[in-house]
Amino acid sequence: MRILVVGGVAAGMSAASRARRHDPHARITVLERSDWISYGACGLPYVLSRDTRGDPGDFGVLVARTPEQMQDQGIDVHLRHDVTGVDAAARTVRVHDRDTGRTRTEPYDQLLLATGVHAARPDWAARDVAGVHVLRDIPDGQAIEADLQRGARRAVIVGGGYIGLEVAESLTRRGLHVTLLEHAGQVAGRALDPAYRDLVGQTLRDAGVDLRTGTQVRGLHTRAGRVTGVETQDGPVSADLVIVAVGVRPSTDLARAAGVRLGRSGAVSVDARQRTNVDGIWAAGDVCEVTHRVTRRRVHLPLGLAANRMGRVAGVNMVGGDARFPGVVGTAIFRVFDRSVARTGLTQDEADAAGLDAVSVDLSSRDHAGYMRDAHDLHVRLTAERGSGRLLGAQFVGVGDAVKRVDVIAALLHSRGRVHDLAEMDLAYAPPFSSVWDVLLVAAGRLGKAVREGQTGRPPPHPGA
Amino acid sequence: MRILVVGGVAAGMSAASRARRHDPHARITVLERSDWISYGACGLPYVLSRDTRGDPGDFGVLVARTPEQMQDQGIDVHLRHDVTGVDAAARTVRVHDRDTGRTRTEPYDQLLLATGVHAARPDWAARDVAGVHVLRDIPDGQAIEADLQRGARRAVIVGGGYIGLEVAESLTRRGLHVTLLEHAGQVAGRALDPAYRDLVGQTLRDAGVDLRTGTQVRGLHTRAGRVTGVETQDGPVSADLVIVAVGVRPSTDLARAAGVRLGRSGAVSVDARQRTNVDGIWAAGDVCEVTHRVTRRRVHLPLGLAANRMGRVAGVNMVGGDARFPGVVGTAIFRVFDRSVARTGLTQDEADAAGLDAVSVDLSSRDHAGYMRDAHDLHVRLTAERGSGRLLGAQFVGVGDAVKRVDVIAALLHSRGRVHDLAEMDLAYAPPFSSVWDVLLVAAGRLGKAVREGQTGRPPPHPGA
Repeated sequence: MRILVVGGVAAGMSAASRARRHDPHARITVLERSDWISYGACGLPYVLSRDTRGDPGDFGVLVARTPEQMQDQGIDVHLRHDVTGVDAAARTVRVHDRDTGRTRTEPYDQLLLATGVHAARPDWAARDVAGVHVLRDIPDGQAIEADLQRGARRAVIVGGGYIGLEVAESLTRRGLHVTLLEHAGQVAGRALDPAYRDLVGQTLRDAGVDLRTGTQVRGLHTRAGRVTGVETQDGPVSADLVIVAVGVRPSTDLARAAGVRLGRSGAVSVDARQRTNVDGIWAAGDVCEVTHRVTRRRVHLPLGLAANRMGRVAGVNMVGGDARFPGVVGTAIFRVFDRSVARTGLTQDEADAAGLDAVSVDLSSRDHAGYMRDAHDLHVRLTAERGSGRLLGAQFVGVGDAVKRVDVIAALLHSRGRVHDLAEMDLAYAPPFSSVWDVLLVAAGRLGKAVREGQTGRPPPHPGA
Repeated sequence: MRILVVGGVAAGMSAASRARRHDPHARITVLERSDWISYGACGLPYVLSRDTRGDPGDFGVLVARTPEQMQDQGIDVHLRHDVTGVDAAARTVRVHDRDTGRTRTEPYDQLLLATGVHAARPDWAARDVAGVHVLRDIPDGQAIEADLQRGARRAVIVGGGYIGLEVAESLTRRGLHVTLLEHAGQVAGRALDPAYRDLVGQTLRDAGVDLRTGTQVRGLHTRAGRVTGVETQDGPVSADLVIVAVGVRPSTDLARAAGVRLGRSGAVSVDARQRTNVDGIWAAGDVCEVTHRVTRRRVHLPLGLAANRMGRVAGVNMVGGDARFPGVVGTAIFRVFDRSVARTGLTQDEADAAGLDAVSVDLSSRDHAGYMRDAHDLHVRLTAERGSGRLLGAQFVGVGDAVKRVDVIAALLHSRGRVHDLAEMDLAYAPPFSSVWDVLLVAAGRLGKAVREGQTGRPPPHPGA
């Protein structure tokens, strides 16, 4: 049995390890195009911000397992190997070894595509200009770090999604003047309903970020091959460092070349066992669609935990086991300066778009007992289906770990729990941790009423006001 | 309709407010023996430690609603009123007004006993000695504060339960030398399994508390009516402040006088609607037994959230509504110095005692991604039923809000979830909040194996080692 894994980060390495654990005899090979495997890409902004252990600027702390450690487990890892083609009928791939410059053919019995995503680049960012970066992998991070050490002072970040927001914090904390350009009217547009996006935007401004929403980037200004600014419809913004964070796209070239079917989202379509439509070819991680358990739809939601989990599922199945990926409920969390943001399930906007009859309540309260000095504001939106009372989602904006409460809602979404179930829960109370009625319970009490009374749950414009 | 509520703290005031909301016409009277109503007794240690807002030593910050505010809601509140007897046949109570010194009879249609608990006092603490305190209510807190301001330097705390542990922190942070005497071999005996109790004990010692376990108190040393020390079997310990925190007892005198049945635990026996066996008499809050949803047994677990919830249920039912108390799953949380501790469901010891075939796994990991500077140790024990895989409980020792993860397990216990359900959950991941596989998921993965393989989950002696 010969297992070939293309891509050695989250899904790929999880698959290889699981396959090895379930089948001590299979020959397992991982082909990775870069110099790095098995690292936590989500940690890249935190190496830049100096939030990580180890030496300043050491991206190696993000590596969970080295090629040598994988080798010790009996997994062959080949770095700097590009897989350039697949012959699904012959069950071979074409591999280009960048060190030797040679191309060879590798046979497989089972092939896993774990090619992940790549950063989208608008036309104006297509050229290779010094000082212009995306932040997807360790070399990207190292290139940004090098520019910082070269003395970059003014950064422009294009795009206000998770990465853009996190990098805005990183670079501000490194002492740069940061301008964030977002083409939409608000940042965090895919994660939150409008009032909660406003809280995030306000957080950026309070931290000194020059946030410009509704801004289109037209091009770059350069001098001697290095960026000096960004041209917008409102004029130029000077910059010696530009981060392009306008989203990611599934890296499906290889899948398409192999005849693997993509879903409507543009990501690879797989079943719950991570099998593609092509015999002997599996896919896992950010390159794949996943089932959203709340809507039952197939969506592209590239996030770390799901990628690792899909990898494990594929690894078990490729050596003859039977594992299934349970899908996601759309949980995400991020920090931006002194604020933490989390969400799970559907926003009101997403529920509306999915054709659900949804209602939301908003609560602005405190994370700990109100009389405690260390209590901070915690804004919660809870969304449920009118009538049935089924919970649909939650959004949180607060401080520190307080927003990890999102996991309670994620747990309820897994079991298709109702608002009433939440309202009855015996949640932990002591003054340093919550009010006697935790914000989740208060919100559930109100939402229960809204669900029954058919009240409109339309948001007040600013939950923090 | 005349509603009489005896006791004006958590359950009593919740009941009065709910009754008022559901019946605008009922005559609602609250009789409270002390000068205070509607306060968060759990906050008492934090006024002492100066963790609360407002002026130093101001216990008023703990008050949620004043008698005047209740009056505005149409609820009569009588302070300094002792209810000394009940005639259940005549539906009257005998009330002693301490201000006037007069005793009168009050009629009722529905009577709620919300008399709470009182601090247990061993024989040696029965005498009224200056400098010897319990900490149950605001006057207790004020008396301790007065002793602190009088210049107390050496405190002895007797008892290592929640209150004793919290007060050890409060007094240490006020600059006192604190000795904690515990008759058992470890502190936190009712909350945690042995290895986790050790972590709590170590925390006390690291913080400079002189912790002496296995210590019996024989009596007090006094001079001129003021305490000067505590006599133990190992000799005397000098002290100018002694806190007796050896547990609480349900205040059932009135209930017994009225012919109300108590349960095996010694607390008042009620049904899910908070009805006692005596027609027209209800009970709610810490004076009652509750149903433990994991064991389905009736237990006495006096905790703030359940007290408030029972009060609401009783309030609705006393005015003709139909509400039910869903029971508890045994969730509790506390802070002791720089460590946070939480538990829900059953410990392994409790599961064994309940005759369940339980297995536990222990995990010592980090609350945030391991490469983050702000990651702290997080020790987790997860317990499940062998074979069925039903989750039975969890214990956490960590830092800050990280242990609020206990609420995810509490949510699962409510739905009688299995280990497998937890393992599949889409929990929130970003490096400042967790590892990609949150400790809950890692623990669930291991416990799933233990449950299937029938491994023994007997604890390693020190999870923190």
